[in-house]
Amino acid sequence: MDLDLIRRLSVPADTKVVLCVLDGLGGLPGPRGRTELEEAYPQHLDRLAEQGVLGQTLPVGYGITPGSGPGHLALFGYDPLRFEVGRGVLEATGIDFPLAASDVAARGNFCTLDADGRIVDRRAGRVPTEVTAEICAALEAGVHLPGVELFVRPVREHRFVLVLRGHALHDALTETDPQREGVAPLPAEPREPAAATTAALVNSFVVQARALIGGRDRANGLTLRGWAMRPDLPQLPELWKLRAAALALYPMYRGLARMVGMDVLDAGTNLETQIEALRTHWDAYDFFFLHYKPTDTAGEDGDFQRKQQAIRAFDACLPSLLALAPNVLVVTGDHSTPAVMAGHSWHPVPLLLHGDYVRSGDSTRFTEQACAHGALGTLPAREVLPIAFAHARRLTKFGA
Amino acid sequence: MDLDLIRRLSVPADTKVVLCVLDGLGGLPGPRGRTELEEAYPQHLDRLAEQGVLGQTLPVGYGITPGSGPGHLALFGYDPLRFEVGRGVLEATGIDFPLAASDVAARGNFCTLDADGRIVDRRAGRVPTEVTAEICAALEAGVHLPGVELFVRPVREHRFVLVLRGHALHDALTETDPQREGVAPLPAEPREPAAATTAALVNSFVVQARALIGGRDRANGLTLRGWAMRPDLPQLPELWKLRAAALALYPMYRGLARMVGMDVLDAGTNLETQIEALRTHWDAYDFFFLHYKPTDTAGEDGDFQRKQQAIRAFDACLPSLLALAPNVLVVTGDHSTPAVMAGHSWHPVPLLLHGDYVRSGDSTRFTEQACAHGALGTLPAREVLPIAFAHARRLTKFGA
Repeated sequence: MDLDLIRRLSVPADTKVVLCVLDGLGGLPGPRGRTELEEAYPQHLDRLAEQGVLGQTLPVGYGITPGSGPGHLALFGYDPLRFEVGRGVLEATGIDFPLAASDVAARGNFCTLDADGRIVDRRAGRVPTEVTAEICAALEAGVHLPGVELFVRPVREHRFVLVLRGHALHDALTETDPQREGVAPLPAEPREPAAATTAALVNSFVVQARALIGGRDRANGLTLRGWAMRPDLPQLPELWKLRAAALALYPMYRGLARMVGMDVLDAGTNLETQIEALRTHWDAYDFFFLHYKPTDTAGEDGDFQRKQQAIRAFDACLPSLLALAPNVLVVTGDHSTPAVMAGHSWHPVPLLLHGDYVRSGDSTRFTEQACAHGALGTLPAREVLPIAFAHARRLTKFGA
Repeated sequence: MDLDLIRRLSVPADTKVVLCVLDGLGGLPGPRGRTELEEAYPQHLDRLAEQGVLGQTLPVGYGITPGSGPGHLALFGYDPLRFEVGRGVLEATGIDFPLAASDVAARGNFCTLDADGRIVDRRAGRVPTEVTAEICAALEAGVHLPGVELFVRPVREHRFVLVLRGHALHDALTETDPQREGVAPLPAEPREPAAATTAALVNSFVVQARALIGGRDRANGLTLRGWAMRPDLPQLPELWKLRAAALALYPMYRGLARMVGMDVLDAGTNLETQIEALRTHWDAYDFFFLHYKPTDTAGEDGDFQRKQQAIRAFDACLPSLLALAPNVLVVTGDHSTPAVMAGHSWHPVPLLLHGDYVRSGDSTRFTEQACAHGALGTLPAREVLPIAFAHARRLTKFGA
């Protein structure tokens, strides 16, 4: 739905909506000819499928394999082709770094270089987060760029975020990460003339950084990618006239939620604590986004069995969530990650809507095939939230 | 998918994609209450439907009956409402005439006029191609227009192409073909002021032509329609980073394929020789468009039985195509041509996708009804190629 139309039709209501995103949910037939969902037989989800209504979503479009950013923006109701969120911005937001509108951010990796400056380990042996924090602090204190304020902040393991704050900075830069070992990191080059100054600043940062950390055994070099500036996203609370909260364990998803105006709650360390936090904050919010990562991790690892178990583990926790009696519960994914492909894919994503005013179909199971035949049909993922909020009586009539 | 997005996400790959277009494939129930596809029981297509995934396409939009031009442009991934290809351009391209960007082309018919200049036979008794060629040569040599180079070229039987090459020519002209007998051909009139000069040139051409051929017994007159200039279509090899080839027997389809950048191969005279040519050129191309006309011809003739046989004849040749083991095989139509309507229709078109990474549905047959329930859903025809190329791993991820 068009954002202006949402703004015009949305109304406050005393209803609760929960959006559960099982990351990478959709699958493909595995060794026994059935998909992860088909083999998992998740009893609670299957029951919800019978009581509720199914469909399948296209996060970005036909044939397009979505990254996590566009996959989530679509589920939050935004056209991911219109609002692009670069990796650097995602990472910065995910560590609570307050990006200013003119900041340029990049995702960094500490890597290990040999004596000739060639990458021998792209992740520096997944150096511990504490060590990365020390290196970041040293770089932030020791590197100086004219007219630019510099932030170097640790994420997890070898990952960090670089933020440049200054005047007329530009994010149209090439990546310094060659994406393979045996070669040296690349210089940052401007992809547009306006980015030439920023490119020079970045390359100066890299030279100074090398001087400061080059003597280390490992994590003695770095690569930078995903140059980006903050997109100007309309905020969910304003668009929908509600209070929105996120329960996500991974930085990137917390960052995405914050970017659209959700409060990011302390959700502990696992699904149980996430649902516990949801219960604690039940009265304080109208809309909850719960992110569940294990389905995607297993899919990315090509582990069919583990993805199936991750679905079952989620299913086992569903009763405690249902006990809160949300008016509308949505279970879907941000994209498909079939274990047989060990990566994201373009296949449509299963969608389940349960709750008040649902016109149920004739489904008896929550599977890709049942969703393909679901009464909601095949729809863009950005229509999921409008449909959910309609069922929660949070959208008024259009026209007389 | 947006063409700029295709350009951005497409990647080369070592995979083969075959698009089989059974012209006018979709049908309607005939005398026994079943459609042509339902009665044909094509055994190989039915098996592919079971292993693959089905859907139905809308070539232009709901309720719109497509011509062959828009039907094919959509299958090649273009929005037919954005890129219109006039009949004159189609015909010129189909006879290998190298149209310049500023040329104006029309499809011509030689017709037979009575003493009063009224049309008595719109096709001049389908005068043989050789005779048409002679008349065309006489006109091209004998008609002179100020400041304009003139080309009059034979197509088949009574059909020819007229091309005007000059300065500031315009294609916004009315057609001179009254589309019925018993009346005289109409003058060409400008549909916009800018086309006034071109209209005058065309009418001068008609007067001079009448003087040259008016003494003939038949084919002593002509009609002109489908005024058009060449559209500026982005080319498939550039958009998709691949080598594309067409195996089509009819000029118009070869012309369409050439217009989007395919190499048009010598494909012989029938489906067997088309598949033979496909085999011969298998290594030299990544994408093959195979056009099959008999389904449409039978449908246009209102011959239910013959359309059903045409489907079976295609089906019988499928094993030799499958023996090449394409990574992705698409079987669909450019529009529906139900025999009971004896013409093109607006009905959705059956779509079958078979090959790598297909998430199969529960179809067991390739029929209009099975396609309407297919797991791909109902989709714009211009999404078929993006979906096929995604399955062939020729589209990379969108966003981080």
